[in-house]
Amino acid sequence: MSRLKLTLAYKGTRFAGWQVQEHPSKENPRTVQGCLEDALQRILGEHRRVQGAGRTDAGVHALGQVAHVDIPDNKQHIAWQAALNHHLPNDLVVVDAVYVSDTFHARYDALNKTYAYTLWLERSYVLPQRSHYVWPVGPLDLENMRIAMDILLGEHDFACFQNTGSDVGSTVRTLLGLEMEQSRRFPEITIYVTASGFLKQMVRNITGCLVATGLGKMHAHDIHALLEQKDRSLAPATAPACGLTLECVRY
Amino acid sequence: MSRLKLTLAYKGTRFAGWQVQEHPSKENPRTVQGCLEDALQRILGEHRRVQGAGRTDAGVHALGQVAHVDIPDNKQHIAWQAALNHHLPNDLVVVDAVYVSDTFHARYDALNKTYAYTLWLERSYVLPQRSHYVWPVGPLDLENMRIAMDILLGEHDFACFQNTGSDVGSTVRTLLGLEMEQSRRFPEITIYVTASGFLKQMVRNITGCLVATGLGKMHAHDIHALLEQKDRSLAPATAPACGLTLECVRY
Repeated sequence: MSRLKLTLAYKGTRFAGWQVQEHPSKENPRTVQGCLEDALQRILGEHRRVQGAGRTDAGVHALGQVAHVDIPDNKQHIAWQAALNHHLPNDLVVVDAVYVSDTFHARYDALNKTYAYTLWLERSYVLPQRSHYVWPVGPLDLENMRIAMDILLGEHDFACFQNTGSDVGSTVRTLLGLEMEQSRRFPEITIYVTASGFLKQMVRNITGCLVATGLGKMHAHDIHALLEQKDRSLAPATAPACGLTLECVRY
Repeated sequence: MSRLKLTLAYKGTRFAGWQVQEHPSKENPRTVQGCLEDALQRILGEHRRVQGAGRTDAGVHALGQVAHVDIPDNKQHIAWQAALNHHLPNDLVVVDAVYVSDTFHARYDALNKTYAYTLWLERSYVLPQRSHYVWPVGPLDLENMRIAMDILLGEHDFACFQNTGSDVGSTVRTLLGLEMEQSRRFPEITIYVTASGFLKQMVRNITGCLVATGLGKMHAHDIHALLEQKDRSLAPATAPACGLTLECVRY
């Protein structure tokens, strides 16, 4: 066996997220991992499990998701990027495929990840070119949002930004980067969030909070209290999946 | 009657271009003008002709197409942007709707237009997020392309960049702007072309020529001879519609 590292991009709109979901009684939902494993099976003639750097939720996009899979010795001559792209659907593409050390692990070896969340700043319309990739929120006070971002940067207990259904131990995480970029071509901003680890829906919950600040529904300095209270129900609502992109995973 | 000026954006992929095409014997193709006139008819209860600033070909996108239409006096209270967007399909949107002078003409009053053409610089894959909006050509020598752009800027006889099927008089046009921008997020460049008037498929033909230069298939300085020979058959092939966007029309 040799270990193959895949860098993947997908439009998340028509995927029920990354992870294969087995439903014995009904049709399995269409997932990124499932499409990849189907393509590999067509090429190899046998099923291989693909290990992702992390799960992305239904509707979340990726430019640089990473995964690994073990390839039998007699199949190592295959040009994997071209072969997989030939079998993959239009909304999922292999950006890069390279053999790595047998000890490489897409999930455990990841140093940090960057997510991007794009907000649409016009109230009266959304461009068809952008509608699948943005959350339309209208005009925002970007200065207030920058104050909020300064407060969130660094190490905090992010319990108030963690959705239920996860059983992690500590909810302390460190935001290594939190930056805002204004598009020159579209009325939109993108927020880039970098961390070594994320809680469940943490980026979408942080974005929901930043938007509440930008809309004037809460003060940036109220974030101090939210972080201290550690209560998800006190924080603004989760931002929708469509605005989120897994930008890259670093090793 | 009062004249309404509409600014329009569309994803061109599923449109057979701007202009209504009447086929007495078969189903009419889906056009931007047709969808707009259908939406107006649903609101007004009568058919009104929409006059565009110019036709866009099948598959060409727009961020700032402009059109005008005359609205009967008893319908002028309607909130046109919201009303039209309610009736328009997902791939066509009214960005702005304002009443203008009765003498305003979307086509004849246009001072100049800017088109954008986006080229994808990777050979082995195209991102699903970008595939409808780019022409995948692989790595390009951008320095050679910049030399070519300097030669094309300004007033020339662009006969070699005009497709057949048009019966304009003079083929002399002036390129007021010709600029290249590299994306910070994607492996792509966008070429912005501004002129007061364009020949048929002129931007796509110029792009085809710039790409031939960037791929090393022709020298930038060969453009001098192409312009002098005035022969379309000697110039490189037309770039495909999908990479082209009508960026804006200025008045």
